[in-house]
Parts: sequence; structure tokens; C-alpha cells
Amino acid sequence: MLDIAIIGSGPAGLSAAINGVIRNKTVKVFGNDPTTSYIYKAEKVDNYLGMVGVSGKDMIEQFITHAKEIGVEFHTGKVIEIFPMGDSYTLNVENTFIEAKTIILANGITKERVLPGENEFLGRGVSYCATCDGPLYRGKTTVLVGDSEMAEEEVNYLAEVCEKVYYVPLYKNLEHIDSKVQIVIDKPVAINGDSVVTNLQLKENDLNVDGVFIIKQNIPTTQLLKDIELEDKAIKVNQFMETNLPGVYAAGDCTGRPYQVAKAVGQGTTAALQAVSYLHKHQ
Amino acid sequence: MLDIAIIGSGPAGLSAAINGVIRNKTVKVFGNDPTTSYIYKAEKVDNYLGMVGVSGKDMIEQFITHAKEIGVEFHTGKVIEIFPMGDSYTLNVENTFIEAKTIILANGITKERVLPGENEFLGRGVSYCATCDGPLYRGKTTVLVGDSEMAEEEVNYLAEVCEKVYYVPLYKNLEHIDSKVQIVIDKPVAINGDSVVTNLQLKENDLNVDGVFIIKQNIPTTQLLKDIELEDKAIKVNQFMETNLPGVYAAGDCTGRPYQVAKAVGQGTTAALQAVSYLHKHQ
Repeated sequence: MLDIAIIGSGPAGLSAAINGVIRNKTVKVFGNDPTTSYIYKAEKVDNYLGMVGVSGKDMIEQFITHAKEIGVEFHTGKVIEIFPMGDSYTLNVENTFIEAKTIILANGITKERVLPGENEFLGRGVSYCATCDGPLYRGKTTVLVGDSEMAEEEVNYLAEVCEKVYYVPLYKNLEHIDSKVQIVIDKPVAINGDSVVTNLQLKENDLNVDGVFIIKQNIPTTQLLKDIELEDKAIKVNQFMETNLPGVYAAGDCTGRPYQVAKAVGQGTTAALQAVSYLHKHQ
Repeated sequence: MLDIAIIGSGPAGLSAAINGVIRNKTVKVFGNDPTTSYIYKAEKVDNYLGMVGVSGKDMIEQFITHAKEIGVEFHTGKVIEIFPMGDSYTLNVENTFIEAKTIILANGITKERVLPGENEFLGRGVSYCATCDGPLYRGKTTVLVGDSEMAEEEVNYLAEVCEKVYYVPLYKNLEHIDSKVQIVIDKPVAINGDSVVTNLQLKENDLNVDGVFIIKQNIPTTQLLKDIELEDKAIKVNQFMETNLPGVYAAGDCTGRPYQVAKAVGQGTTAALQAVSYLHKHQ
């Protein structure tokens, strides 16, 4: 069992990770490739003390180098959901289940918006993970709504198992979509059905489907961890980065403004040290 | 008038300063030489993301270089007290008076302990600044209680103007004390007098004096700014580093645990951005 599972590999997550490892805890970072962080694309970052005039790319690369030198382990694969298990938490990482004593949420800015029908049909035709649930739709018709290029691998996988796959991209500049996928440029409005999903309603079209996959670069926090308390759309934390759930901490953009690297790094440090202190008390 | 006066030149103060300057505010840092920071003496600091395995000295020097390259101005001289003036604040910097619209307290860990009689006789024989009040004791007898080498310059100055000067050092390894100063190794217990100070009572000795100078490396926060609200001996702040006083922010060790460079730097950034936002609202 992990001592600390860190959700997010941006500045907050990496800062938490190095502090956890330095304190001799077993730590794993779950997250997108750090180079997908919005900071990575920044031309110049001047206000992180000690690094004057670096590019976002150089900064993130220095952060990753630091983390790797300290011995931080990264786990590829997306955390779909986190379940409280009494004294610990279980992470569903694309249908691999991993236990951790504490959680640090460093999952950045997420949008909590859900489609009408999304919650209602979750597990009955709505899924957040093609890798996990794709096989259930073998020979059937599905649609995947994706908000970034990161969804493309998932829709291409669906094309291998499903009879028919639609793709509704919520971004421009598609990169690589399998020719079997039918691309639909439109906006999702609602998910309809009876006992199970039958239809994705779009602004201009209606798609009759057996399954709707919704793939977001950042999974909304309340979808990740149902009982987490928010305030002004950010995770509510106290000065020690404690959330309302025991053993769960948050750091960085997910705790609200200001959206700054230094603030994320500082909160990551505080969250990790608080998690370490919790682990010592609950040994 | 300054937009932002920053009290303290450690990681929190420097981080606040670069952010204020980047946002085009007039900023000044008041503080001890940054090389007196306790971090400067750290053999190795491994947990500030992006700088792996640096010495405290190298880290602080990189911080100072960054601040100077951005154009941060430093003001030598100690801030003795800060007075609220309605819409702004006036700083007493060793009897030079400087106005600022906002204040960021980044004054590190301070001890709030006062001697019996200290508050009572303040301004009537008790002083926190030899440079300021020394001339009032020309030809008289004074004692200076100092908690670091930084007090030595002040006691040597008193030796020039007073008839007789005692020095009670609260640290070891005295560096350079004028031969006219009488060193007394003892612990202060109370300050006594009638309408004015007549006596400093020590554990083993009693010194009959006209003035008692108390020189601390870090002036207690409630002495700097009387109405500031503390909680568990630290400055009480919210997530935006706002204190109970309008236009006054705090960052770093002075806001409490954890005492970490990354947390200080992050809070310094947040405090500066919040001060900038306050300045825009109160233009």
C-alpha cells in the first residue's frame, strides 16, 4: 500500500512528491505527462524565486529532473475515481486498483460541469474510461466526447472494438484519429435513455448510441472523490492544506487563485508534510 | 509613497518583492542582510522544487540575484514600528519615516516575550533602537540587551555617547565589542523604575541605569504593528495572506508552520498579488 498517492504531476504534485520521498514515504505520482501542463507552453516565467527568465519548458524540465533525482515514481494511467475505504483510499487507475493511506489532490483547474443525464446514466451507458469499459461495447455503437488530444488514443481504441464510433472533439487541431471513427463537430447538450443510454443529443445532431464516453484532460474533482468539499468551485483547504476528508490534502490550482507556480509548489510542500504527520499519527 | 513595503528579506520577502516589481509597483524590501537568514547556514536544501541538492548559501544567493535582476530595491536600516495612517502606513526606519500604501510582513519567526516592565517603560527609559534614541542618553548610564551579533554595532555606538554602557548578550561568540563597554553575562528578569527606568534586574546582578535598550534580530510582530492579530503565536492570515488589517499581508515563517522555503516563496507570491489587487481597488 502506498503511503501517499499524488493526483497530478504539475508543480504542486511534484513538490509534494519530492517532500514525501525525502521523508522516506512510499509515494507515487499519477497524472498526465507533465509536459501537458499549461505552464510548459509559457514563453517566459519570471516570478518563481531562484529561476529568473526561464521558459515554461525549461522550468518544468528542471522540476521533473529534480523529482527523478530524488527518486519520485510516476504511474502512467489515469485515476478515474477514488474510493474511501475506512483507514485508506482505493484508486481506480483505468481498472487497476491501487491502495493508498493518504491522497494529495494536485489536479489543477477542473470544470465541474456535467451534462444533463450524465450522472443519471453513469455506469448505465456513460463512462469516463474507454480503456476500462470499451470491451463492454464490443460490436455496438458508441460516441466519445473529448476535450483534448489526450482523448484521441481512447477513441482510436474504441474503433477497434466497437461496430461504430463517433467522435465529438471539444478542441481544435485534431492530431491522429483512426479512419474508422466518424468525427462530428458539434456541442453536446444532453444524454438520453430509458434504463440505459440510447442517445446523445447535440446542438445540431442526435446520435443514437449504446454508450457515451466522456474523456476530460482533468477529471472534475467531485467526480474523482465524491465527498470532497468545494468552495467557490475550488477544493476547500485550511492553512495546512487539509480538506474535509481525513488523510486527503490538496495543493495548487485546484485550491483556487492565485494560479501561480510558486503558490502551487509551496502548497505541495505543506500538503506533503501534513500527510507525513498524519501517517505518523496513524501508524 | 511606496506601493508595497516588505518587512523581511528572506525567501517570503524576496518572492513578494519580485512579484510586486513585475506588476509595476514601487516596492522596497526592509530587512536584515539576507545572508543572516537561518537558511543561509543550511548545508543542503533538497526540497525546493527545481533546485536539487543546493547549499543554503547558494540558494539564498540565487534568490538575491533573481531579485536584483528584476530590479528589487533594498533599504538598509531596521523597521522599528509601523503606524496605521488611515489609507496608508508609516514606517519608522531608525527614525527615518517612510510611507507605504500596503505592507507585507515577512519577518520570520519572532519571539513575542517581553520582560516585566518592558511595555510599561517603553519611551520612558526603554528603547528598541540605539541609533534613534542613543543621543537622549548622552552622559548617562545605559544597558543594551542583544540577542545576536547584530546588536554589537548598536552597543558600540552607545559607548560613544553614554558615560557608561553595559552589554548583556543573549548569545555566545561575541564578535567585536568596544573596550569601553562592560560585558555582563547574565539573564534579564525585569525592568524597574518609578516614572522612568532606574534599574535592570538580572538573575545574578542588578544594574542601575537610565536607559534599557533591547535589540532583537527580529522585532516581535505585535511590537512592529500593534493591532495585528495573532493565532498560536503566528500572524493570522486567510488563504490570500490577508491579515486583520486592511492592506497588510503576511507570508512565510511569520504565518506559522511549516517553516519551509517553498511555503514561504508561495505565500510571498500570493501576498504580493493580493496587495496589487488591493492597490488597484484603492487607486
